[in-house]
Amino acid sequence: MSSDSDLRAGERMYSFAQDLWRYPRSITGNGLRSTLNLLKTRLPELQIHEVPSGWKVGDWTIPDEWNLQRARLWDPSGQVVCDTEWNNLHVVGYSEPFSGVVTLDELQAHLHSLPGQPDAIPYVTSYYERRWGFCLADEVRRNLLPGTYRVEIDSTLRPGSLTYAELKLPGSTVHEILVSTYVCHPSMANNELSGPVVAVELAQYLSKLDERRYSYRFVFAPETIGAVAYIHKNLNELKQHVVAAFNLTCVGDDRTYSLLPTRDGNREIDRVARHVLRHLATNHHEYPWESRGSDERQYSAPLVDIPMVSIMRSKYWEYPEYHTSLDDLERVVSPAGLQGGFEATRRAIEILERDSLPKSTVIGEPMLSRRGLYSSLGAGRFSSLPQLLLDVWSYCDGTLSTLDIADKVRHRFDEVDQLIRQLETLQIVSVTPNYLR
Amino acid sequence: MSSDSDLRAGERMYSFAQDLWRYPRSITGNGLRSTLNLLKTRLPELQIHEVPSGWKVGDWTIPDEWNLQRARLWDPSGQVVCDTEWNNLHVVGYSEPFSGVVTLDELQAHLHSLPGQPDAIPYVTSYYERRWGFCLADEVRRNLLPGTYRVEIDSTLRPGSLTYAELKLPGSTVHEILVSTYVCHPSMANNELSGPVVAVELAQYLSKLDERRYSYRFVFAPETIGAVAYIHKNLNELKQHVVAAFNLTCVGDDRTYSLLPTRDGNREIDRVARHVLRHLATNHHEYPWESRGSDERQYSAPLVDIPMVSIMRSKYWEYPEYHTSLDDLERVVSPAGLQGGFEATRRAIEILERDSLPKSTVIGEPMLSRRGLYSSLGAGRFSSLPQLLLDVWSYCDGTLSTLDIADKVRHRFDEVDQLIRQLETLQIVSVTPNYLR
Amino acid sequence: MSSDSDLRAGERMYSFAQDLWRYPRSITGNGLRSTLNLLKTRLPELQIHEVPSGWKVGDWTIPDEWNLQRARLWDPSGQVVCDTEWNNLHVVGYSEPFSGVVTLDELQAHLHSLPGQPDAIPYVTSYYERRWGFCLADEVRRNLLPGTYRVEIDSTLRPGSLTYAELKLPGSTVHEILVSTYVCHPSMANNELSGPVVAVELAQYLSKLDERRYSYRFVFAPETIGAVAYIHKNLNELKQHVVAAFNLTCVGDDRTYSLLPTRDGNREIDRVARHVLRHLATNHHEYPWESRGSDERQYSAPLVDIPMVSIMRSKYWEYPEYHTSLDDLERVVSPAGLQGGFEATRRAIEILERDSLPKSTVIGEPMLSRRGLYSSLGAGRFSSLPQLLLDVWSYCDGTLSTLDIADKVRHRFDEVDQLIRQLETLQIVSVTPNYLR
Repeated sequence: MSSDSDLRAGERMYSFAQDLWRYPRSITGNGLRSTLNLLKTRLPELQIHEVPSGWKVGDWTIPDEWNLQRARLWDPSGQVVCDTEWNNLHVVGYSEPFSGVVTLDELQAHLHSLPGQPDAIPYVTSYYERRWGFCLADEVRRNLLPGTYRVEIDSTLRPGSLTYAELKLPGSTVHEILVSTYVCHPSMANNELSGPVVAVELAQYLSKLDERRYSYRFVFAPETIGAVAYIHKNLNELKQHVVAAFNLTCVGDDRTYSLLPTRDGNREIDRVARHVLRHLATNHHEYPWESRGSDERQYSAPLVDIPMVSIMRSKYWEYPEYHTSLDDLERVVSPAGLQGGFEATRRAIEILERDSLPKSTVIGEPMLSRRGLYSSLGAGRFSSLPQLLLDVWSYCDGTLSTLDIADKVRHRFDEVDQLIRQLETLQIVSVTPNYLR
Repeated sequence: MSSDSDLRAGERMYSFAQDLWRYPRSITGNGLRSTLNLLKTRLPELQIHEVPSGWKVGDWTIPDEWNLQRARLWDPSGQVVCDTEWNNLHVVGYSEPFSGVVTLDELQAHLHSLPGQPDAIPYVTSYYERRWGFCLADEVRRNLLPGTYRVEIDSTLRPGSLTYAELKLPGSTVHEILVSTYVCHPSMANNELSGPVVAVELAQYLSKLDERRYSYRFVFAPETIGAVAYIHKNLNELKQHVVAAFNLTCVGDDRTYSLLPTRDGNREIDRVARHVLRHLATNHHEYPWESRGSDERQYSAPLVDIPMVSIMRSKYWEYPEYHTSLDDLERVVSPAGLQGGFEATRRAIEILERDSLPKSTVIGEPMLSRRGLYSSLGAGRFSSLPQLLLDVWSYCDGTLSTLDIADKVRHRFDEVDQLIRQLETLQIVSVTPNYLR
Repeated sequence: MSSDSDLRAGERMYSFAQDLWRYPRSITGNGLRSTLNLLKTRLPELQIHEVPSGWKVGDWTIPDEWNLQRARLWDPSGQVVCDTEWNNLHVVGYSEPFSGVVTLDELQAHLHSLPGQPDAIPYVTSYYERRWGFCLADEVRRNLLPGTYRVEIDSTLRPGSLTYAELKLPGSTVHEILVSTYVCHPSMANNELSGPVVAVELAQYLSKLDERRYSYRFVFAPETIGAVAYIHKNLNELKQHVVAAFNLTCVGDDRTYSLLPTRDGNREIDRVARHVLRHLATNHHEYPWESRGSDERQYSAPLVDIPMVSIMRSKYWEYPEYHTSLDDLERVVSPAGLQGGFEATRRAIEILERDSLPKSTVIGEPMLSRRGLYSSLGAGRFSSLPQLLLDVWSYCDGTLSTLDIADKVRHRFDEVDQLIRQLETLQIVSVTPNYLR
């Protein structure tokens, strides 16, 4: 498995995020469809599905489909205050169509801004109740002139469907790794264009591997309702095949690394994620399950119970630009940030793909000197013994896996994996794959 | 299950302790019988039993019965120095009858006082060897006049019986909770009138419940020999039915909370007791098994092995007034202290009675907004999501109990229990009882 | 089991080490044979075995046999610089025969010294490649005169055999304790004459016991290749019978105590060793498995997997005199050091021999007062209760062993063992042996 962990991947993901920026995404509608179609140009095998409005999924109902042409707000002097051509966040998500004139007083009930972040346009939605509204910077709102305002919200909100996409990469077994991300957030970068672009990069990386131990399932869906719909349609398959899952969100900035573990907190995938982060960053923040807030809420729900982790950079809720127009490709997300987000999950997958049960084939220690691995002159306290190689070998008893041994000798999985391959080549150990089940 | 945890219970227990104060209790005799008869006025179903002197129980033999009319000591000037009408502690428990005149020198071998606590009358007994003696304040003893003293110990010490009482409250199952306390201590308050009066209050509280998951067995017996006798007579029944037990001792002062866990230290009842104390007090003291000193020595003995905890206020041995006349209803025990002692065990019982295995009935998260539990407007980092309710629900997988979940989300059992009942009412979870077995 | 832990044992071991000092030991040859023959004078049952050069053992081949008559080096002025009659370390172990004249420049490639320890002769060997060389103090080497040097290495290096010895002490079961030490180190004291002399003392101690629960197997062999050869010849027997093993090395100085645990780190023998060291020394150093460097590398190798610990004084590599002429009987090893090394393993063996499963025979606590073990006068907080005896008894439930109980009450094994014997004599507990298996 060769690593494609160079900075070109970071640049490629960053540039793809720029291409995806402008679509007016929501949990349904054409902005979502255009996004998925653009993903399909990179992943031709991507299957796009529609779920009709009104269908019951789990405890939920698919809502009407929302399509926005444009939303604008003019002040009493005729100057444009908000325009979704400037920024999709200017309109409250799922705003019903409205065209008319209102006083500033009437308008205020429809405006959303953040006094504590006066230059930020907040991200506001009203999926399950009919409303209309605008979002704007508080410093703009505070200077609005008294008088009458013209409102033009050119949207439709009527029965249609919810769109999601799925990609399957078959492997040598039916055991599956699930990668889920969401595609409903308009014009924000870390939360959430980073998830989809890293997911695409991972899918391309995996599709190029000569062989895959696991089969892979990528899901690109709107958050919450999309995940619920996907689970509803695929529950038996998911429960039967998926042995571990990654939720890709907030994987684009270069500030820190974060982990949201599984509900249980001690599944194999948690150990894998912790191993990766321990060796990838000098420190990282592990959050408790109670801090969850993404699609693990659905995939790890009691009756679904898929062991899903989120290996993130700056976690949603925890960075100041979260859910505002400031979460963009200049301030927050960078090629290096995306590269790190990609690399963390790639390494976790590499562990799952390569973890093995090595077992010594010799009785007593191997004689390394006759294999040219050890100086023939024994002297003093600092011998030329390849200590790590022998430490690793000493644990090859057929019950400990590569990851177990890596954690025991406190080295990175891939280093230990390489030593085990060397021992295998020297015919000192035999190796069998170690599957998650 | 409504809580009767108001201060009236504290006052009621305190007043009852005042009524019980004067009886000359010992491990046998009429002081003990009168005490049990007064308890029976509050618990009409109480069964009083007698075990004859000389019977073999376990490794022990029931001793002769001791009855004290009065014990007095006169100094050379004819002034009374000790009189059990003043305080039952003035005579050594189980003093044989004696009437005569002795010199001060001869008398000294029969006197007991505490130089380090000069105003305290110590509590001394001689159950298994024939003696007589007086206990008095060291400041009094130091000023005794030389000369001859008149001794009048009007007691009987001859074959009779040992008395104990038992109350059974049937529940919906044969699984039993045992509550044991002892009734042999004369004229001391925390150790031990607090245990009997809290036990009576608990029995009344439990008898008023509409339903009880468990059956309850209350034992009021003299310490050690009474417990051994009770176990001897009921061993098979105890081993078959009792799933958890509380030893009620030192539950009357308002200074602190203490726990003596089971011998193993990790039984379910230990978890329950720790949960209660963690949420009842800002901190409490947990003692090791090696600090035991009450009837868990018998009930948790190797071949009996009942998981018994003592949830105490100030533990025996650990407060300065222990086993002296200073352990009284003015200095040590208070209504608030008794109330806290009652409440701690009541809460532990509430957990045992209500602990359940909740299981979600929906696939994916419940949609709270359509149930009016969640604002329909999603915005910013501080949503109006009822986070605790969802955290609790997220653990409702049918394997974790209410107590497990309460410990995971770090909330009090009754708060989490109430949320689970709310989820049950909303038909989002189904609930089955979780029995100790 | 009476303890022979007096200082006479330390003196006896020390004096025996002095006797063994002069033999030119190596992994083969007559120095090794003479050493084993001298051990046999103390252990008449010792069986001495030869393994021919060229035999394959495990991953290794028995090398040619090396015998040294004498090695000398003369400087240009005719003065002797090195002579193995002065110190066996002066010649590189396994030096091939050589006789001739070389310039100082040519000679330098054959010299070994330690610039950081200018007064120490280093210990250097070249078992598996043909070389010759001298070891000397760096302060001597620095002052060597220019000119030609005469070299006389009177050795033979040709097919012969490797020698090891074995002693078996039968016990009441076929379960075995293995004690291994090595006899290949020339003229060094802690590493390694301490191991063989302590092993001899232990074997004598065990042979004098009235009964042994376990059978014992002592192996005296050259390090690494000797252990590999021994394992190769006895693998099935070892795997079938050996339940715990001690590697005796570096047990002669009085500076500290050290533990190298088993590979797993949590075997029963690890608990035993930790218990012994916790009670023997105010503190000791526990090393990780990765710090191993002795024959546990062979005995605990994956396919052999014997649980072996090394309970040491100053561990190899960790003391400044290690593997130099400074590791001698004056600077490093002392009678008290050897005594401590002996005592540590003796105590561990005592635990293995005596560990039991005590079980109470009485229901409820035993009545100690009628057995004269407890004052009949109950008073105050400081009773004369034999608390430790009752604590120990309270754990006698038939599932906890003497060692478990000793760890729970935090007392030394032999103290708790003695209390259990007392309880057995009083017929309050019954005792069954607790075998390692």
